[in-house]
Amino acid sequence: MTYTVEIKVMPLKELLDPQGKAVMSGLQNLGLNTIADVRIGKNITLQIDTDSEEKAKKIAEDASKKLLANPVMEYYEILTPNP
Amino acid sequence: MTYTVEIKVMPLKELLDPQGKAVMSGLQNLGLNTIADVRIGKNITLQIDTDSEEKAKKIAEDASKKLLANPVMEYYEILTPNP
Repeated sequence: MTYTVEIKVMPLKELLDPQGKAVMSGLQNLGLNTIADVRIGKNITLQIDTDSEEKAKKIAEDASKKLLANPVMEYYEILTPNP
Repeated sequence: MTYTVEIKVMPLKELLDPQGKAVMSGLQNLGLNTIADVRIGKNITLQIDTDSEEKAKKIAEDASKKLLANPVMEYYEILTPNP
């Protein structure tokens, strides 16, 4: 069975996000000045062939730790897999 | 009031995602060979100062159309704002 798992990788809250700051000033130049903050991270969708939701989640966790997120600068969040 | 709105910007399903393909082969080299597909997009968190959830959503929609997503290559999804 194929499970779809979404992983959200965002810059740590304590760190500055220069890409977000640049986009924020871009939005303000376009007249959207009620936007107080912008943070930009990654959204990764995995298709995992396995036999249970728990295994799919474990594989996603493993992938995040080994390759997808850099714990020095980012945190990740795994969203519940849908079959 | 400040609303937090999340916007997911992903490459269109019809298009190849070279970044995702590269990450997939990286994961397979690490031994995670049950992963059948990887797609990578952006996750943008906006903090919007406004007085209702509907207005916050409208502003996020506006920002996505004007700057955050390129409709030729990407689609976006606005996740319900939380106060």
